[in-house]
Amino acid sequence: MSKKELIVNAIKEGTVIDHIPAKDLFNVIRILDLENSKNQITFGSNLDSKKLDKKAIVKIENMFFKQEEINKIALVAPEANLNIIRDYKVAEKMKVKVPKEVIGIVKCFNPKCVTNHEEITTKFEVLAENDVALKCKYCEKITDKDHFEII
Amino acid sequence: MSKKELIVNAIKEGTVIDHIPAKDLFNVIRILDLENSKNQITFGSNLDSKKLDKKAIVKIENMFFKQEEINKIALVAPEANLNIIRDYKVAEKMKVKVPKEVIGIVKCFNPKCVTNHEEITTKFEVLAENDVALKCKYCEKITDKDHFEII
Repeated sequence: MSKKELIVNAIKEGTVIDHIPAKDLFNVIRILDLENSKNQITFGSNLDSKKLDKKAIVKIENMFFKQEEINKIALVAPEANLNIIRDYKVAEKMKVKVPKEVIGIVKCFNPKCVTNHEEITTKFEVLAENDVALKCKYCEKITDKDHFEII
Repeated sequence: MSKKELIVNAIKEGTVIDHIPAKDLFNVIRILDLENSKNQITFGSNLDSKKLDKKAIVKIENMFFKQEEINKIALVAPEANLNIIRDYKVAEKMKVKVPKEVIGIVKCFNPKCVTNHEEITTKFEVLAENDVALKCKYCEKITDKDHFEII
């Protein structure tokens, strides 16, 4: 073991989320409400990546997600993949999948939309799966990825 | 090297901030504006600690702070200490020090305070150094640590 290395325990049980675009790490954290989690969490950001410009990775001990929960992160990190760890080994691999409909999470881009003036949960139809664009079910305006504001 | 371990490179040059109360990790991130940093950053949260209930640690590659910058984090993490890393070795150790005056960073707790209604930067006198309490220079109300809202 060289002095230049530092050991971090791999997680025993939990979830590793890889291939998050670095600029979206904090959006993923918001979507999964990790800021309020009591679980042991490690984040790495602005790491080199072959697939992405710069990537982030999140490891969460003793936490597992349902498919519908992880699909929410597809809005900002469509290339993310999850490794489910059991007894230090990868027990399962999961891909995020952009849902057909998005309820809540994102704010409608249209300042005049009723959802920005009354206590109404936003609701969108997903138009494009790769470069996600969301069509508001109330005002019909389209909020594109560059204008996502996570609620 | 056992399979149960995973190597993370120690940083070559940069800053390690240790002994951050886990619940205040995201406040430290906000205060240092790490969300917008392009540097390689690793965060660990809800780690076991002898000193604190649960601690967080932040490692930032190629980033160094001035004493006045790091003193800002003393508001939420008065026990934090910094290790300045040069060529993989601890070159310097720094302690955060609660400043006598706080300009900006924290929102005044008093909803009627002028700083909450006009575009005025908040300004506080620091009353207690350990359990930091801030006396507003405009309305004289005291914002205690449990009510800090980082701007």
